[in-house]
Amino acid sequence: MSTTDKSVFERRESEARSYCRSFDTVFTKAVGSEMTDEAGTTYIDFLAGCSSLNYGHNDPDMKQALVSHIADDGIAHGLDMYSVEKAAWLEAYENIILKPRGMDDYKIMMTGPTGTNAVEAAMKLARKVTGRRNIITFTNGFHGMTMGALSLTGNASKRAGAGNNCAGLCGVTHMPYDGAFGEGVETLKQIEMMLDNSSSGVDAPAAFIFEPVQGEGGLNAASNEWMQGVARLAKKYGAMLIIDDIQSGCGRTGTYFSFEEAGIEPDMITQAKSLSGFGLPFACLLIKKDHDIWKPAEHNGTFRGNTHAFVTGRVTLEKFWKDDAFQQEIHEKAMMLTSGLQAVADIVPNSRLKGRGMMQGIDVGGGELAGDICARAFEKGLIIETSGADDEVVKVLVALTVPTETLRKGLDILLEAAREATASHKIAAE
Amino acid sequence: MSTTDKSVFERRESEARSYCRSFDTVFTKAVGSEMTDEAGTTYIDFLAGCSSLNYGHNDPDMKQALVSHIADDGIAHGLDMYSVEKAAWLEAYENIILKPRGMDDYKIMMTGPTGTNAVEAAMKLARKVTGRRNIITFTNGFHGMTMGALSLTGNASKRAGAGNNCAGLCGVTHMPYDGAFGEGVETLKQIEMMLDNSSSGVDAPAAFIFEPVQGEGGLNAASNEWMQGVARLAKKYGAMLIIDDIQSGCGRTGTYFSFEEAGIEPDMITQAKSLSGFGLPFACLLIKKDHDIWKPAEHNGTFRGNTHAFVTGRVTLEKFWKDDAFQQEIHEKAMMLTSGLQAVADIVPNSRLKGRGMMQGIDVGGGELAGDICARAFEKGLIIETSGADDEVVKVLVALTVPTETLRKGLDILLEAAREATASHKIAAE
Amino acid sequence: MSTTDKSVFERRESEARSYCRSFDTVFTKAVGSEMTDEAGTTYIDFLAGCSSLNYGHNDPDMKQALVSHIADDGIAHGLDMYSVEKAAWLEAYENIILKPRGMDDYKIMMTGPTGTNAVEAAMKLARKVTGRRNIITFTNGFHGMTMGALSLTGNASKRAGAGNNCAGLCGVTHMPYDGAFGEGVETLKQIEMMLDNSSSGVDAPAAFIFEPVQGEGGLNAASNEWMQGVARLAKKYGAMLIIDDIQSGCGRTGTYFSFEEAGIEPDMITQAKSLSGFGLPFACLLIKKDHDIWKPAEHNGTFRGNTHAFVTGRVTLEKFWKDDAFQQEIHEKAMMLTSGLQAVADIVPNSRLKGRGMMQGIDVGGGELAGDICARAFEKGLIIETSGADDEVVKVLVALTVPTETLRKGLDILLEAAREATASHKIAAE
Amino acid sequence: MSTTDKSVFERRESEARSYCRSFDTVFTKAVGSEMTDEAGTTYIDFLAGCSSLNYGHNDPDMKQALVSHIADDGIAHGLDMYSVEKAAWLEAYENIILKPRGMDDYKIMMTGPTGTNAVEAAMKLARKVTGRRNIITFTNGFHGMTMGALSLTGNASKRAGAGNNCAGLCGVTHMPYDGAFGEGVETLKQIEMMLDNSSSGVDAPAAFIFEPVQGEGGLNAASNEWMQGVARLAKKYGAMLIIDDIQSGCGRTGTYFSFEEAGIEPDMITQAKSLSGFGLPFACLLIKKDHDIWKPAEHNGTFRGNTHAFVTGRVTLEKFWKDDAFQQEIHEKAMMLTSGLQAVADIVPNSRLKGRGMMQGIDVGGGELAGDICARAFEKGLIIETSGADDEVVKVLVALTVPTETLRKGLDILLEAAREATASHKIAAE
Repeated sequence: MSTTDKSVFERRESEARSYCRSFDTVFTKAVGSEMTDEAGTTYIDFLAGCSSLNYGHNDPDMKQALVSHIADDGIAHGLDMYSVEKAAWLEAYENIILKPRGMDDYKIMMTGPTGTNAVEAAMKLARKVTGRRNIITFTNGFHGMTMGALSLTGNASKRAGAGNNCAGLCGVTHMPYDGAFGEGVETLKQIEMMLDNSSSGVDAPAAFIFEPVQGEGGLNAASNEWMQGVARLAKKYGAMLIIDDIQSGCGRTGTYFSFEEAGIEPDMITQAKSLSGFGLPFACLLIKKDHDIWKPAEHNGTFRGNTHAFVTGRVTLEKFWKDDAFQQEIHEKAMMLTSGLQAVADIVPNSRLKGRGMMQGIDVGGGELAGDICARAFEKGLIIETSGADDEVVKVLVALTVPTETLRKGLDILLEAAREATASHKIAAE
Repeated sequence: MSTTDKSVFERRESEARSYCRSFDTVFTKAVGSEMTDEAGTTYIDFLAGCSSLNYGHNDPDMKQALVSHIADDGIAHGLDMYSVEKAAWLEAYENIILKPRGMDDYKIMMTGPTGTNAVEAAMKLARKVTGRRNIITFTNGFHGMTMGALSLTGNASKRAGAGNNCAGLCGVTHMPYDGAFGEGVETLKQIEMMLDNSSSGVDAPAAFIFEPVQGEGGLNAASNEWMQGVARLAKKYGAMLIIDDIQSGCGRTGTYFSFEEAGIEPDMITQAKSLSGFGLPFACLLIKKDHDIWKPAEHNGTFRGNTHAFVTGRVTLEKFWKDDAFQQEIHEKAMMLTSGLQAVADIVPNSRLKGRGMMQGIDVGGGELAGDICARAFEKGLIIETSGADDEVVKVLVALTVPTETLRKGLDILLEAAREATASHKIAAE
Repeated sequence: MSTTDKSVFERRESEARSYCRSFDTVFTKAVGSEMTDEAGTTYIDFLAGCSSLNYGHNDPDMKQALVSHIADDGIAHGLDMYSVEKAAWLEAYENIILKPRGMDDYKIMMTGPTGTNAVEAAMKLARKVTGRRNIITFTNGFHGMTMGALSLTGNASKRAGAGNNCAGLCGVTHMPYDGAFGEGVETLKQIEMMLDNSSSGVDAPAAFIFEPVQGEGGLNAASNEWMQGVARLAKKYGAMLIIDDIQSGCGRTGTYFSFEEAGIEPDMITQAKSLSGFGLPFACLLIKKDHDIWKPAEHNGTFRGNTHAFVTGRVTLEKFWKDDAFQQEIHEKAMMLTSGLQAVADIVPNSRLKGRGMMQGIDVGGGELAGDICARAFEKGLIIETSGADDEVVKVLVALTVPTETLRKGLDILLEAAREATASHKIAAE
Repeated sequence: MSTTDKSVFERRESEARSYCRSFDTVFTKAVGSEMTDEAGTTYIDFLAGCSSLNYGHNDPDMKQALVSHIADDGIAHGLDMYSVEKAAWLEAYENIILKPRGMDDYKIMMTGPTGTNAVEAAMKLARKVTGRRNIITFTNGFHGMTMGALSLTGNASKRAGAGNNCAGLCGVTHMPYDGAFGEGVETLKQIEMMLDNSSSGVDAPAAFIFEPVQGEGGLNAASNEWMQGVARLAKKYGAMLIIDDIQSGCGRTGTYFSFEEAGIEPDMITQAKSLSGFGLPFACLLIKKDHDIWKPAEHNGTFRGNTHAFVTGRVTLEKFWKDDAFQQEIHEKAMMLTSGLQAVADIVPNSRLKGRGMMQGIDVGGGELAGDICARAFEKGLIIETSGADDEVVKVLVALTVPTETLRKGLDILLEAAREATASHKIAAE
């Protein structure tokens, strides 16, 4: 195979492209937690499609099911018509996910197959159900790039993408996330004071929306108490509780949903990323039955209900979630991950661990150092990225199925990269 | 195979579901222009995924390429990293689509893989480039369901989905589409008078956006003169000209882009639906190079650049667009379609033909009759839907690759269904 | 008396000041239709406080009533408490204005004492009553400078004052005023087509608002048929009909309200400017009783119900509106005005008369010529201004009480100024 | 004089009327701090036109000047043309207010003659100057009823007046006022953390706006430290500092401006209410010279620069502000007021004093009790009102010129009313 002339990307692909700038090579194959480029170099993947590949690349069972489906002329695209694959996925989801978790009263809306579309559907529905407009969102939250979802998103440079369309960013209130004002400040109590005060200017909310662990915002993890507190406020004020579990769900934090331990009962839950298990575009919105007041096609979309994703998504449920084995496996790997990151923290001055489960990282204090660590890691064969308002967190989003040996190897590379980068920065600072 | 218990759809799928209500059966397979359900009944598909399946279901060459890619552990999801498949698609697009059409100065933005996401990206970029906010959109336009795109969309019931979030629907001006005020009214001249009048209250536009043929809005087809007129106004007022070619593109009207005959040069072009050729989620935004002022990741998304879609999308280009043969084939089928629809028109009082190319239909005067025709057609083995503000247009969106025999058969069913429905309505009216 | 040092204005008054730039002298006294400056020069006033002085400066009866009220320690400011002066004004308004015009079912809301405040109150109430948001306003309309009223205003430079607060300008649709697209184009029929089309994107309106004669927009006068047509549309679509009679009311067009001849029945009417008769700040909103759903203080304001204005306002009603004599007088002066302007039109190429009643002017084709005419007039002792999108209309807003001799003198000056300016422009053009 | 038939108010005045409901009698005359009704009953006025009558009703010097001006045919209304009265007021303002306070670099914008109009002008200018949109406003703030000012206002029932025009309420962020979260919570530090965090979602501010003492919001008084803190934040983030001194200014808190002791230097200051001194509509916006980037007439209005108000306003400056005597007098009365309110507090369980200077009141714990106290006071001859989110504060806004004997008498009535109401509520609670 001849080598790809990379100039075509420069010549034809918009300046908006991003990850390819950090990982400047042309990939050809990927299996499990490894990606291979044209030169035959293999990289350990600690990014996992930003949590879209929780089950790794090209899982053999999903692969076989998908190839077989395609070979048999199964439906690829059928709008939202009924198909055997949709029925099979719905039944698996009902029996494996919903019922065992006491979530029998949820319905599933097939939104356009992107996370931002599921968020938009949730926003629209919350406003329809309550007749209110204001949606309370939280600092460092990231919910998508279309205008509705962007209004919920905190990141200033992303918001700048709206140009001068300030109206599109309206109708939401940005409140402090758990811990945003430091230890000891009970931000929820303050939010409650604002909402109890009829002259606060904060309008009665249609919804609260948050990510249990903020993927793009720096791996801030909400405590169970905080999540319970938001749930209580939502109930108190007659607002919808929307959990954005797009990045933190599908096992990423150790349980299928990231809020299971908190014991809360959201009115709506957004899912996407690893929902198909294979990296295929797929998203949905779980809705408590009473709130499912949509009229037919009131929110529609060409690609809602991606049939290929139903096929692979069903495999994820049957293979990984029928019993507790996988959760136990995640739990053990998460402990390894914590240890490995602690080793990094031990050598990076003033650093601290962030996140939980298999959604952890390390705040190294600044974006420059974090970026340098990631760049050095890539040179050593590890794909890994930063997150946070200032890109100050080195974030590990390895597949949940990563072999422990690979995980250890990746963490070793990370440690070495951190050692070199820290030393280099120390010299530069002197 | 046991028969699917359809109650799972009722029990679990949101009330927002739609097409399944018209075509109440469970599909299992699909090839070319035919879909088969569990009972083994085969239907002729005159809907083609709402123009997402211009090359039919499971095209054998795309199928083989995709199966081979998956079997070889090709990348399924790689965020927007470089891959050989992306390079191959870009090169094919450059050589087969852009260069022969004198469009060498376009770049391609991989947006989230849905049409609405491409539209949102276009809106944001137009506002960034011009520093203005107002986007001029047209009556009966349909551009998507996320808040930005929804603001451009005319349909009142879709707009109602926004709940009371009026702010999200702001920042646009809805103007009459070609012919909206009937013959002889030059709507563009009026728009020009509004924009020339500094006290009209219509703010200087960031962009004009329109569909050359309005798919959801009732198959209204803009004349070349009108499209040229909008292009002239965009230039005169320093606004971006955005063509939404999501439903009308990829050969649907007879040429790859639906505006080719008009000879206009849009600043941006949205593409989705049939872009992958296989019905896989994929969308992009073509941008004139000078306007590509995005910062890296300023508009991003998890599923942008669907690698499976690059594989099948490349096949569409190489198989169908390397020479004029396919265009000629579309042209001939379009004439057949016109004849077939004319036969229907001849028996439906006060009906008239709409659309152009393989995007044609018949306005039968009301939604009730149109719905009855489609329902009767389905009973006879034809999948077909309505469009228009009052669902008054029976719309044919058959695959461009449909065998002429199948096309003829489908049109015969349609004629028979129309005959029965018209007779029934005549009796009911008496 | 020493002469005022005008530098204090330059030094202390904001750049937003405007009329003083055209009439660069310091005024000391004013009686009837004449103003006198420090130097003792007397000017004929063809501006009349932009129609705030319909009864001239310092009308002797109002003056006496006001001086007597103040000397007797009458209430100057009493918030909206009950006062004998308010009762007297209300009773006079009821008996002299409302009842004889068959308008017994109107209530009066004392808004903040400026036109823009009355408009804001009307907008809020229309949205409350209908539960809708969209207000249809018309090209070249001028309704005020606060954010709500500004959204209704067409003038681009005024709108630019909002800075980038695009959201504030939302929620309205700007439609063509009577004649905006030239003779023979039935703009109302087009508006109706837009509103009848459920996919037009123009949301169901909460209200229609227009000025029967557009004061700032260039003295465009709506025909009775057009006003009746808007009234019909408002009724058809369940929208409030709001007449902004701030500049055109209080006799300016020949009747107390400017829409009387059209025989329409607005849901709300805004009044201000000449309402006090003496130039004192005063505004109100007439509301059909059924729509008066305000809660106490839901829209309030410190200066609503200016007691001094009740005193003088009552005099205007009793002195001028008890019988038809004043209307007859206005009618005769309006004919003189038309003749005088026609004489100007005869010497200005391509000019044309605008407006009706005592709200007439002449479109001289461009702002430069119009400005030159006004500047030359001022040098000759006549205060007169321009209006229109391009300041192309020389506008006469002389007091309705102007002595015919003064009116004739003023028109003579105007003619002479026009003659000189036209000649000068002709030379410049050659 | 025959007695007024009050039914005319019921019959003709909108339901929006408010104060007249609490003080259900028809007033005829007012002098100093006393108002007299038709029946000849005299009331002590502890409301003073909501701080519009800081110098009492019908001050003899202002009265004489105004009568003389009117009798001499002085200008009543001259748009914003130059007049000797305007020059005289500007010079007095410059020499008596600005220069002695080191405020030589302020210019004065004559806005429409209502507080809300001055606030709207400030908002527009702040957005123009900074090119930003977000204005930070504070809990319990009250800034007016027109759409821009209403967006800054916290009160939920006032906000409800906007109907469903959510867009109009956009573009602002409501933050906690000094002390809003109770003792020990440094709200400014939290605001700073939000603004320092580029992912907080709180956009960079165009301005901060607050009232040094919140008149309608419950007499919350900001500390000097807090005001200095906001000033520091405004500077740090490049935002305009706007002080709304409409109710708290003109000596109400003890100094001419209410922020003088804090030593801050606002970019803009809104004034209205007592600016004319006589209760006449008058408002202005002070602007630091560098920010005065208005174009002529970019924000205009018919009644800007009320000439009668220039006449009386000049008297206020020359009579009260030429030396420190008046400030000293206010100071002494404020101490009396504090004592009097403390006596009330001593008998109302759990009550507490609010406010500062002559802008004080007592929070009695609930709106019902506060309303009862005011109603009983009125029966005893005292006009007094409540304020606060729940109307829980009995607010004293007596004229600054009130004779000490009258002040004492009013406080005695208040004490007696409080005693009775408290006893009655105690019984009701048992």
